[in-house]
Amino acid sequence: MSGSMVVVGLGPGEARFLTPEAAEALENADALYGYLPYLDRVPTRDGQTRHASDNREELARAGAALAHAADGAHVAMVSGGDPGVFAMAAAVIEAIEAGPDEWRTLDVKIVPGITAMLAVAAKAGAPLGHDFCAISLSDNLKPWELVQRRLELAAQAGFVIALYNPVSKARPWQLDKAFDLLRAALPGTVPVLFGRAVGRVDESLRVVPLSGARAEFADMATCIIIGSAETRIVERVGLPSLVYTPRSSKGGA
Amino acid sequence: MSGSMVVVGLGPGEARFLTPEAAEALENADALYGYLPYLDRVPTRDGQTRHASDNREELARAGAALAHAADGAHVAMVSGGDPGVFAMAAAVIEAIEAGPDEWRTLDVKIVPGITAMLAVAAKAGAPLGHDFCAISLSDNLKPWELVQRRLELAAQAGFVIALYNPVSKARPWQLDKAFDLLRAALPGTVPVLFGRAVGRVDESLRVVPLSGARAEFADMATCIIIGSAETRIVERVGLPSLVYTPRSSKGGA
Repeated sequence: MSGSMVVVGLGPGEARFLTPEAAEALENADALYGYLPYLDRVPTRDGQTRHASDNREELARAGAALAHAADGAHVAMVSGGDPGVFAMAAAVIEAIEAGPDEWRTLDVKIVPGITAMLAVAAKAGAPLGHDFCAISLSDNLKPWELVQRRLELAAQAGFVIALYNPVSKARPWQLDKAFDLLRAALPGTVPVLFGRAVGRVDESLRVVPLSGARAEFADMATCIIIGSAETRIVERVGLPSLVYTPRSSKGGA
Repeated sequence: MSGSMVVVGLGPGEARFLTPEAAEALENADALYGYLPYLDRVPTRDGQTRHASDNREELARAGAALAHAADGAHVAMVSGGDPGVFAMAAAVIEAIEAGPDEWRTLDVKIVPGITAMLAVAAKAGAPLGHDFCAISLSDNLKPWELVQRRLELAAQAGFVIALYNPVSKARPWQLDKAFDLLRAALPGTVPVLFGRAVGRVDESLRVVPLSGARAEFADMATCIIIGSAETRIVERVGLPSLVYTPRSSKGGA
């Protein structure tokens, strides 16, 4: 029997975001691997084994899953959001590149999902309606100086900026530093969206001007969207405001 | 009766990408609006009306749909991919901002979907596994000089670049100009992915080095992903290569 590896995006949380393709891939797997809170979202099925690991052990998790697939199992690696955006797909392929030759013979498939910034944007309106970028604020895997340079260039370019991994216990000061840096480059009125656990029952969205944005509004479950100078807020009486970035731009980035 | 407007992302094509939330929103609508090829993807239902429009008439389409909702109907605007990424959500909110006060009293909801770059990335591997940006190459709604500046800054930043709307009959030369500009800033070996109709039965993916990238490989149904200097290709015997951008970066953008 020939094994396979599928990396499955669960989307932002509730089952209403899980695509039929992802549901089918989970159903057909002999074994599920992943970070425990993601595994907990998947209904259990008789005969299917589960292999939970901690948040920070991505390469080890990928290697264990690939070894299992190379033994002939149909293995699914579960990932929150989209597996290709700051998630497990790159770790699995990195492990294949570094691993034994037989891992390159496996049937490998990536099943996309709704990534966090799309869910936060949908809840807020259409802040990603114009050119944008997505940056992981974590400096675990790249130098902080590179994060800073990217933020500066993104602001210069007039990109809306989605920030993944904005804070963690080990990275408490980086987000405030990022806001300071962006305040030097963008108007203080630029809307900043803090989407926490969006797509889950406890979701919340806070919108503040860049001048008042603070790291304490975010935690590990937060995805942040920082508008451009052209992002607008449409006020509504008795209803949440709609935040959007117009499709057209005059070019004054 | 109080009307509502929901902007629904259909994802990249086949029903396997349609989320349960999107399917429910379509099922519950009294009227569907949208560009004809997107409407054609939605199963017909008795009692539900359909209002197709042309590709370029986004604001007029949004206004007609909002007026219908203001009359008390539950209206769904269908959008390919994710409605918040170079699609209908921003047009609808722009129309609300410019329209009569009563449009601001409508229940408005955006239902996210799998946007094209995520589907192309999943088919190729994990090219968006590190920081990236998304740029619409259309200069219908912004000056071409701004597109050029953004491409240059994105290359300087070391972003992987997803290009939406790369070509059209009215915009034949812009994509080759963009490749020329990027060739001046990035190694010629950088992988460029042309994903055409990915997520549909006639999907195709072509991967070429930046040195050989040409506009003739793209059409209106193509989403292009241009790697960074760190994007890698994992060759496999008898299987498609896997293209990925490592999660870690040393900073040499």
